[in-house]
Amino acid sequence: MTRNELISLIKERKSFLCVGLDTDLNKIPQYLQGQPDAAFLFNKAIIDATIDYAVAYKPNLAFYESMGIEGLVQLKKTMDYLHSLDKKAFTIADAKRGDIGNTSKQYAKAFLDPQGDFNFDAMTIAPYMGEDSVTPFTAYEGKWVILLALTSNKGAFDFQFLESDGTKLFERVLQKSKEWGSEENMMYVVGATKADMLADIRRIVPNSFLLVPGVGAQGGSLEEVCRYGLTKECGLLVNSSRGIIYASNGEDFAQRAAEEARKLQQQMAAAMGL
Amino acid sequence: MTRNELISLIKERKSFLCVGLDTDLNKIPQYLQGQPDAAFLFNKAIIDATIDYAVAYKPNLAFYESMGIEGLVQLKKTMDYLHSLDKKAFTIADAKRGDIGNTSKQYAKAFLDPQGDFNFDAMTIAPYMGEDSVTPFTAYEGKWVILLALTSNKGAFDFQFLESDGTKLFERVLQKSKEWGSEENMMYVVGATKADMLADIRRIVPNSFLLVPGVGAQGGSLEEVCRYGLTKECGLLVNSSRGIIYASNGEDFAQRAAEEARKLQQQMAAAMGL
Repeated sequence: MTRNELISLIKERKSFLCVGLDTDLNKIPQYLQGQPDAAFLFNKAIIDATIDYAVAYKPNLAFYESMGIEGLVQLKKTMDYLHSLDKKAFTIADAKRGDIGNTSKQYAKAFLDPQGDFNFDAMTIAPYMGEDSVTPFTAYEGKWVILLALTSNKGAFDFQFLESDGTKLFERVLQKSKEWGSEENMMYVVGATKADMLADIRRIVPNSFLLVPGVGAQGGSLEEVCRYGLTKECGLLVNSSRGIIYASNGEDFAQRAAEEARKLQQQMAAAMGL
Repeated sequence: MTRNELISLIKERKSFLCVGLDTDLNKIPQYLQGQPDAAFLFNKAIIDATIDYAVAYKPNLAFYESMGIEGLVQLKKTMDYLHSLDKKAFTIADAKRGDIGNTSKQYAKAFLDPQGDFNFDAMTIAPYMGEDSVTPFTAYEGKWVILLALTSNKGAFDFQFLESDGTKLFERVLQKSKEWGSEENMMYVVGATKADMLADIRRIVPNSFLLVPGVGAQGGSLEEVCRYGLTKECGLLVNSSRGIIYASNGEDFAQRAAEEARKLQQQMAAAMGL
């Protein structure tokens, strides 16, 4: 999906909501547990309930990998379902990959290749190994790297704020990575729990899309994120995972997910003045 | 596998060789290509040919993921085979994972859990997200985190050498991570292409095991690695991937792999004085 297509989708749905599919078989409603394809059936119900309010879905690879090979089968069914819908959505493999060039090329093939099992639009990438670990992912037309800049967790303070020559590590990642891609194929992860840093970040990447996790269960505020992060073309994808998909663990889970997604969508429409 | 068991294995085989299973269906011998279970059959032949000269095997996850779900089936067969052998080996998931705590916990379950599909002894982890992204992997008894410190690629120079308060980022990773684990459950990736940095690294982690990629195809020197990296309990696992597994792409590939592994093992035995 190109940048323009993504911006059109955001305007059309009046939403920049990304629903995180952190599907955990211990947390889905009991009546689904133990059914064949339980993870896929859960995801399908969540997607059907939220797609009018969301523009993106972000399966968290860890949750599928922890189910073993069967988990990847469930992920493939989820992706096939998303690709089959008339209502389009931007798809993100939350994979946090990154390795030497010839290995990153294989990860790109695994998740972004249109002929592959998954065909995601984007994937999250860790920056520690530098340029040749990132650029293989931008080689696919219309596909995106979402580079970790400032993450939402406590451990972000261990290294991401280290300063050299007056520049923090996450700022250096933003600056340096502008040489590796463009606003058309590179986004950044910026945690909502550190929304006060967004003004600084916007000085480095004024127009780039930011993927913002941490609203909801992790404590970030949507209002703060919008105040400092919104651009005139939106420039944000705000993710909520647990706050939507586990809003209820009863048979009303999909309806409750829709309600939570709709609440966020309405706040987002208001923030964009739509 | 505990540290003592690993040290015993190294002494017994007079080797600290790790064979990287970067299995690429386009590079394996033509007569195997297109056969069912080609990747597993290739790995099995490599393992059988090299296990007398190697103490560890390191499947590179990217190469299996790039084959789609079928690739993970091939990986599971490979791991099941390794676990079935009387001759033991240390197994490393070269996965470069790392995410917020509750997600890292899922990755740990995916690759380290004895009840899971793979049951690796260790996995490689990227440090960018800090403590809570790393510690879930040390929660499994007898299992190891192998944290990226100084990688073997060109992109290592983008961020890993950035200095703050006189300390380079990779040195900070080494220092900080000593609070998260011990010499019994944490190793570090240090690229052989930067062997001259090993003396500095040994000042920070004098006894820790180092996993050293980059000997062979990437240009690193085993002699240099040993000069600066060996400890009295060895303290090294030196990886070779392409130099062994693709030593020949003919029907003699396993025999040629054995020869290359044996050459390295003999140099290693000499370096250890065994």
